[in-house]
Amino acid sequence: MALLETSKSSLGSVLGSMNPDLASERQTASFSVEKLTAWLDGGVEHTLIRRAVVEAIESDPIFSRENQYFQTQNERYEAAVRKAVHLQKKMHEMGWTENGPEFKYIYRALSGDVAFLLHRVFMRSISVLGSDKQISKWIPLATQYRLIGSYAQTELGHGTYLQGLETTAVFDTTTQEFILNTPKISAMKWWPGDMGRSATHTVVFAQLYVHGKCYGVHPFIVQIRSLQDHSLCPGIIAGDIGPKMSFEHIDNGYLMLQNVRIPRENMLNKFCEVQPDGTYVRQGSQKINYFTMTTVRISLIADEVIIPLMKACTIAIRYSVVRRQSKLKPGEEEAKILDYQTQQEKLLPPLAAAYAFHFINDYLQELFNKAYSEIQNKNFDTLPELHAFSSGFKALVTQYCTSAVDICLRACGGHGYSLLSGLPSLYTKIVASCIYEGENTILLLQTARFLVKCFKAANTGQPVPPSVTYLAAVKPEKCPAKNKLDFLCPDIYTKAYQHMAVRLVSSTAAKLQDLVQSGVKKHDAWNQCTVQLTQAAKAHCHYITVKNFVETVEKLETKAGIQKIMKHLCDLFALHGIFSNAGLFLHDGYISGAQMDMVTASYLDLLAVVRKDAVPLVDAFDFTDKSLNSALGSYDGQVYQRLYEWAQKSPTNKQMSPAYERYLKPLLHNTLSKL
Amino acid sequence: MALLETSKSSLGSVLGSMNPDLASERQTASFSVEKLTAWLDGGVEHTLIRRAVVEAIESDPIFSRENQYFQTQNERYEAAVRKAVHLQKKMHEMGWTENGPEFKYIYRALSGDVAFLLHRVFMRSISVLGSDKQISKWIPLATQYRLIGSYAQTELGHGTYLQGLETTAVFDTTTQEFILNTPKISAMKWWPGDMGRSATHTVVFAQLYVHGKCYGVHPFIVQIRSLQDHSLCPGIIAGDIGPKMSFEHIDNGYLMLQNVRIPRENMLNKFCEVQPDGTYVRQGSQKINYFTMTTVRISLIADEVIIPLMKACTIAIRYSVVRRQSKLKPGEEEAKILDYQTQQEKLLPPLAAAYAFHFINDYLQELFNKAYSEIQNKNFDTLPELHAFSSGFKALVTQYCTSAVDICLRACGGHGYSLLSGLPSLYTKIVASCIYEGENTILLLQTARFLVKCFKAANTGQPVPPSVTYLAAVKPEKCPAKNKLDFLCPDIYTKAYQHMAVRLVSSTAAKLQDLVQSGVKKHDAWNQCTVQLTQAAKAHCHYITVKNFVETVEKLETKAGIQKIMKHLCDLFALHGIFSNAGLFLHDGYISGAQMDMVTASYLDLLAVVRKDAVPLVDAFDFTDKSLNSALGSYDGQVYQRLYEWAQKSPTNKQMSPAYERYLKPLLHNTLSKL
Repeated sequence: MALLETSKSSLGSVLGSMNPDLASERQTASFSVEKLTAWLDGGVEHTLIRRAVVEAIESDPIFSRENQYFQTQNERYEAAVRKAVHLQKKMHEMGWTENGPEFKYIYRALSGDVAFLLHRVFMRSISVLGSDKQISKWIPLATQYRLIGSYAQTELGHGTYLQGLETTAVFDTTTQEFILNTPKISAMKWWPGDMGRSATHTVVFAQLYVHGKCYGVHPFIVQIRSLQDHSLCPGIIAGDIGPKMSFEHIDNGYLMLQNVRIPRENMLNKFCEVQPDGTYVRQGSQKINYFTMTTVRISLIADEVIIPLMKACTIAIRYSVVRRQSKLKPGEEEAKILDYQTQQEKLLPPLAAAYAFHFINDYLQELFNKAYSEIQNKNFDTLPELHAFSSGFKALVTQYCTSAVDICLRACGGHGYSLLSGLPSLYTKIVASCIYEGENTILLLQTARFLVKCFKAANTGQPVPPSVTYLAAVKPEKCPAKNKLDFLCPDIYTKAYQHMAVRLVSSTAAKLQDLVQSGVKKHDAWNQCTVQLTQAAKAHCHYITVKNFVETVEKLETKAGIQKIMKHLCDLFALHGIFSNAGLFLHDGYISGAQMDMVTASYLDLLAVVRKDAVPLVDAFDFTDKSLNSALGSYDGQVYQRLYEWAQKSPTNKQMSPAYERYLKPLLHNTLSKL
Repeated sequence: MALLETSKSSLGSVLGSMNPDLASERQTASFSVEKLTAWLDGGVEHTLIRRAVVEAIESDPIFSRENQYFQTQNERYEAAVRKAVHLQKKMHEMGWTENGPEFKYIYRALSGDVAFLLHRVFMRSISVLGSDKQISKWIPLATQYRLIGSYAQTELGHGTYLQGLETTAVFDTTTQEFILNTPKISAMKWWPGDMGRSATHTVVFAQLYVHGKCYGVHPFIVQIRSLQDHSLCPGIIAGDIGPKMSFEHIDNGYLMLQNVRIPRENMLNKFCEVQPDGTYVRQGSQKINYFTMTTVRISLIADEVIIPLMKACTIAIRYSVVRRQSKLKPGEEEAKILDYQTQQEKLLPPLAAAYAFHFINDYLQELFNKAYSEIQNKNFDTLPELHAFSSGFKALVTQYCTSAVDICLRACGGHGYSLLSGLPSLYTKIVASCIYEGENTILLLQTARFLVKCFKAANTGQPVPPSVTYLAAVKPEKCPAKNKLDFLCPDIYTKAYQHMAVRLVSSTAAKLQDLVQSGVKKHDAWNQCTVQLTQAAKAHCHYITVKNFVETVEKLETKAGIQKIMKHLCDLFALHGIFSNAGLFLHDGYISGAQMDMVTASYLDLLAVVRKDAVPLVDAFDFTDKSLNSALGSYDGQVYQRLYEWAQKSPTNKQMSPAYERYLKPLLHNTLSKL
């Protein structure tokens, strides 16, 4: 028993003290972590507000995520609803409002583990698509949670292609009602969040029919559950779609409608209206609809994608300086695994990417704000560019970050595979971002369509947005780099990316044209080019990301320590991209084989350089232990103690297994009492 | 209510009838599916045995996986133990034995969802490492399940590097016992399967100390739970390590040992013995130990990696001809998503790879059998090659298949993300194969070490195994292909792979030598080359896989229909590899940019060709609906009905949510009864 006591008491004393292997990493930081954090936040005042929100949320036991990894789907849902309800109270208590500076930090502080997110989409769609009268009726009710809203667009058989939706809304002039139906099983609404068990109302997208004529898809407010007892309303069949890879806390639901009648006033009618006699009137521009989709895509990039990657990097990098395995030098103690080149190659490019994407998110926000103020003045000119960019970056960033989280998980070996590491739940959640709000391949093809159009325009002297003027120039150049140090010059690698993007866009545009000229029908030609079109779209976004990173670093001139390490990260991000997509740069000889060897040499050198600051670079993301919720990634690096303590809380350790009495005892019945 | 009844009755009649979009795919097969199945099985007699096993298992309700996606970790464990116990009875009933032809199909038929797999490892380690006396004592007990065994090697702080294990076994001459301890928290055994809740005994690996001297790591049989009441033995602290990304059915465990005494006879002593006076005697060769590890690595490739990929391909491809989305041609109905080039690009290379890896598995089995018969004659010469190859292929195949399953999941959009698709559980399980039984990076470096050694030997005229003689030839050649059809010539692409592999091995060997000659210490030089060494190892394995696929197709000459489609798949596998690793082939100009365009053109053409037979090609894998356990992948293609029916069985639909009474009702309390 002596050892147990030793180990228990040492647990008590060890937790709270910092693992010396982790501590030593912090002593040698080449820059001020606190200053980098403030800069990433956009100023120290934001850091202070963020930390205050985090402190308020994390000190409140109702928001605790402590037992999350042990909970069933039902328990997760209950907790998320409890948190959502409590959040209303908390916001009131703290004086936080939706327009206040704290609001954007709440979701991050909750790690998204809260219900009623679709309630907000319900409200936004009414605000955007509803008339003033509808807004003044519904928004106050929703704001006060006198109803719970959802948003029912996707169907079992229909996602991306909205025109294909099968739900119908037939106008009945005699009763002045719409009659809603999901006439086939594939028409059933499927996936809407908050709808499976919580929502009382939802916005249903349905094909509008008046006097037998179809007017296309329109939005309708439909009550689905009683406000008295929460039972399903007549004609409504709804429930939960069951277990998913993640999102256990959300009641994604299904909904069948059987002759459900709603009043004429429940069609959201800012842009289109059915008059009492059935006359269909379209009013105003619907372009703003695209703007809503764009808003969602841009906002998810930070919260749902970049932050999870930052968390995964924090966990994996802290673990990699605590974990020692095998000997790097004979006779010495086992080495920190981050000292192995292969481990650096796994974790440091994702770290550089987390920074790169943080900056591209700023870039998109700026583009968005500019577009927004122009739209206020009824100028919709920037919308196509914003739509194309938000689509392409949503695809690029979600795909890259999903792979990077996966790499972080695997780089932690067996312990990364334990839910207690926090990495599996980061992965299973982030992978959904590749699918929702526009499937990535389809989004890339929308970007590609824009690029091909701009390419043609630019090369026939027509005006194009400044971000794509580079497409006009296709020069048969060669990269001028003479040695590996030349590849640390941003101008050298930015040009390489630009050249590569132009080549892919132009060659695919040419293939498309050749096919059409040779008699292939336009839609077939397009389909035959789609693999290459997605490559071209990614190349464009990759180029802009590198260019933007370079420009961000240049603006940093006064902040010496930070600029230096950011420059290293920028170089690393750029050269890793060339190294791992070598074919795209070698293809037309812009970069030669000998130059690619220089790229490789510089890239490998950079791994060793950035490795030195790896821990400070993740510390700067400023995640609390509670927000990481990881036995591997805590600030003090006491990995093994936490794994052991947490495992003991698992329900699998809470009981003598019934399996023993039922199955093992009879099996072992003949055994000798002592072998 | 009319619609509900309609939909219910139509469900009844529709399930069981085949979706016409899927049926049409089967009518145009270019080959006999049944013949291809028999060929993949190694002869129709094997197909018959396999189907008989599957039928016996699947018709037995105790082996049902019907509610698997709804079960908690505790429920999964209970079920796995129940199945393991029942399996003993079943085998007896059916007359199946461990040496019979049925045995290898049982695990596949159970989809691995069964306990006591480590019991078999326990037995194997005693058989291999134990003396005849130990074998005759323990193996009969284990065979009759009078005890349940486990295998305790990995520790919280130690995985790959066995020499670093911290558990100690000190010999006490006075009592003739070993005293076992896990002296630090990092020494705690962690991960062993069947140990957390089931095992009564385990083989513990510990540092042997006699008279204060350490003799390194040795295996000891330790009883951990009472055979009377299953309580933990004195000095034992053990339990379950808690939730993981998958493997809910396995009780991976932890184990602390506190002065646990075991008799001298419990050290497995075929190769090493401690005599009563403490004299340490080493006897015989331990090389056979490597052979055991190799056996495990080879056997997992088929069961844990290739079969899951085949299942994922079956699910995603069947779904992709049932799902229709958007219009490919204006005016027509929505298109099957498999008709989009981008969907073909996602799913058909993984399909080709499933075949390629099935054949490489045959290749490894042959290599293994040859080595085995040589070892019987005390000839260990082939062991290094077998070890290097099984390591490299384990890494290549697990990594590729894991990515491919992920692609299949995402290619099914939202429905792929539902657990009911079966894809998330395939992914979360297969990803572990990249980590266990040797972490992939470390395995690749072992292969690389062998290749560098062989490269040096081959180039100094020393003998090397036939599989690596190609390394002797570094020629500054160019690929002779003149047009895209030339790239359908296996000789052209096999040579390209060979050239690429030689280039990577030779250039990395040269870098290594240069570094050492410039004064860098050997271990540092090695570390600085590891990123490139892993590339070289992968390149070698990729080359052998292509070469082996080509040879497999060539041997098929008499089976015309099958040979033709296999040739297409082989071409597709090879050209996809060149297309997606273009940089490796372009680097030294072996393939020019213009030739890479030919590769791309041929590759894209092949997608359209293979697409026609995609469904028959997955049908040939011959998975039953029960073994796929997927709402998307069933043979009849009734996707939407199954999703709806299965979702209704979810525990999230089994009750009025307590969240309503607790949180929603108070929230909604002020609401108007009718809005």
